Amino acid sequence: MRAARYYGKEDIRIEDVPEPECGEGQIKISPSYVGICGTDLHEYLGGPTFCPVSPHPLTHETIPVTLGHEFSGVVSGLGANVSGFNIGQKNGVENACYKGGFVGLSGGGGGLSDAVVVPASSVLALPDNVPLDIGALVEPLAVAWHAVSASPLASTPNANVLVLGGGPIGLAVVQALVARKAAKIIMSEVAPARQAFAREFGAHHVLDPRTDDTVAMSKELCGGEDGPDIVFDCAGVPASLVTACQAVKARGTVVNVAIWEKEVPFQPNMLVFREAKYCAVLGYQRVDFEAVIQALGSGALKPASMITRKIKLEDLVEGGIKTLVSQKDKHVKILVDLTS
Amino acid sequence: MRAARYYGKEDIRIEDVPEPECGEGQIKISPSYVGICGTDLHEYLGGPTFCPVSPHPLTHETIPVTLGHEFSGVVSGLGANVSGFNIGQKNGVENACYKGGFVGLSGGGGGLSDAVVVPASSVLALPDNVPLDIGALVEPLAVAWHAVSASPLASTPNANVLVLGGGPIGLAVVQALVARKAAKIIMSEVAPARQAFAREFGAHHVLDPRTDDTVAMSKELCGGEDGPDIVFDCAGVPASLVTACQAVKARGTVVNVAIWEKEVPFQPNMLVFREAKYCAVLGYQRVDFEAVIQALGSGALKPASMITRKIKLEDLVEGGIKTLVSQKDKHVKILVDLTS
Repeated sequence: MRAARYYGKEDIRIEDVPEPECGEGQIKISPSYVGICGTDLHEYLGGPTFCPVSPHPLTHETIPVTLGHEFSGVVSGLGANVSGFNIGQKNGVENACYKGGFVGLSGGGGGLSDAVVVPASSVLALPDNVPLDIGALVEPLAVAWHAVSASPLASTPNANVLVLGGGPIGLAVVQALVARKAAKIIMSEVAPARQAFAREFGAHHVLDPRTDDTVAMSKELCGGEDGPDIVFDCAGVPASLVTACQAVKARGTVVNVAIWEKEVPFQPNMLVFREAKYCAVLGYQRVDFEAVIQALGSGALKPASMITRKIKLEDLVEGGIKTLVSQKDKHVKILVDLTS
Repeated sequence: MRAARYYGKEDIRIEDVPEPECGEGQIKISPSYVGICGTDLHEYLGGPTFCPVSPHPLTHETIPVTLGHEFSGVVSGLGANVSGFNIGQKNGVENACYKGGFVGLSGGGGGLSDAVVVPASSVLALPDNVPLDIGALVEPLAVAWHAVSASPLASTPNANVLVLGGGPIGLAVVQALVARKAAKIIMSEVAPARQAFAREFGAHHVLDPRTDDTVAMSKELCGGEDGPDIVFDCAGVPASLVTACQAVKARGTVVNVAIWEKEVPFQPNMLVFREAKYCAVLGYQRVDFEAVIQALGSGALKPASMITRKIKLEDLVEGGIKTLVSQKDKHVKILVDLTS
């Protein structure tokens, strides 16, 4: 079968590999659509970071490993002692592991192949009204859903929220905030194409930090002296850390959704003088996958226009990864189509 | 009357000033004991920081202002429409103001004088069994109590706690943790005299970060892979920020009690990969004063040995401030005795 295998920095190969066997308690999936993620770009441009160079504690594999951790697919095989699934059934796949293993990064196969075997407990069915390409968006939406769940949104009546950074995760956070009825959603983003996406997905106000004073204007938009109750940092750069800490209301919460490339300067007094919290989140849990799938089924989440291109597996590097690097502002999600 | 007036950096003068009048809703206090605080040292050595150089929004005063914000005293006058207090009654005084004014820093008088007038709503009575010198410790203990209240201690069964820094506030945090029954209290402190104080106040383990690996040893003391549930940073230096973020358990909380002198390097991924929270606290609220006074009355807090010296008002600079600077490790609290 075909598989996109990561060998190291700037070295991804589409190869022919043996099809995996489906053991006890496992389900074999034929992936349909696979999203290309920022993590994949980081591995390609500067990795290996997540991909194991020594045997991974869970999979015992080292690179090369098959990529693809945002995927939907169809059940193509059932191991012994698996109930609740049928061959041919559509699925969303949860890939969270608290111990730090990811299908599609850590070994053990990945979505960017014709078949992948995963534990039955990691497979979630999609409702009939959610197509498979939307199913491939469950993973990035779950990151955003998890971040919103970790924030005090639910316990803050009429919460005003500032989102810093309109990349795929920032845009997913906007959608999760709309679905969960935040009172006011302000996006701060440099790129005009991403500003337009933010508006489309429901941001009430869009600021451009190159020309707007994000701290002052977000306070004004929130009605005066007080800043936003919650600030999501989806940018992860020195300027966004300062903006988040200066904009947030007294006793408010900064939620960091970003992964940081390096140390940055930080003055904790920014938080001290407003008794604010800085809350870091990572990935998601099964409940986030379940909640996103339910919201997709009910129509509370309508992420279709996140999909800005579909490509074939053979075009992964040029049409996918390199395009996301060179034209990143124009794209939100590029999906690899494995259905044909 | 006598008053210790702050004129600017390294300029505090004991002067004769007119006694204040007691207006409607106000109480006049004759201060008995006044603690010298790190904030006072910072004002003396490097200020003005808190003391106003332009008219303060609440007091409309500029320097010189009377110092002294940790004090107990006796009621010496009652303004019109004040009930619930009698002349001669002992008091603890609350000095928290969310808008940033402090009696004894911002103008409007201070404890380091023979009389000070404060709003009746800011005065709390001491129980009969709490002497006036202990009453002067209510304020620093309230800072610690507030920090512990802001932490998840109450909702964490058998919480293990690491305290970084054994200065007056770190030692007060240890006492608050003992009073509130933390399961395991680990102190990390460089100075041997402060290590001894930490043991005396009830820390179960005391580490020396010069010779001990605080991160590894606190994990070991907490029983293995997991670090402490809560880390209090009472040191406020680059090394303590890193230690706090590396030691804290997954999904744990770092509580910052320190005020920071400048920006420090920070890698948010330290929090991200353990989904930890960084929670900043500042000062206290009235409820913290009330809780501390109750704990002093019940004996849950026994802070007497925090008082390492008592001096006369005339000796404030040499015997108080300069001694705290030159022999800071030997002293916890120096009180100015105004009773004679």
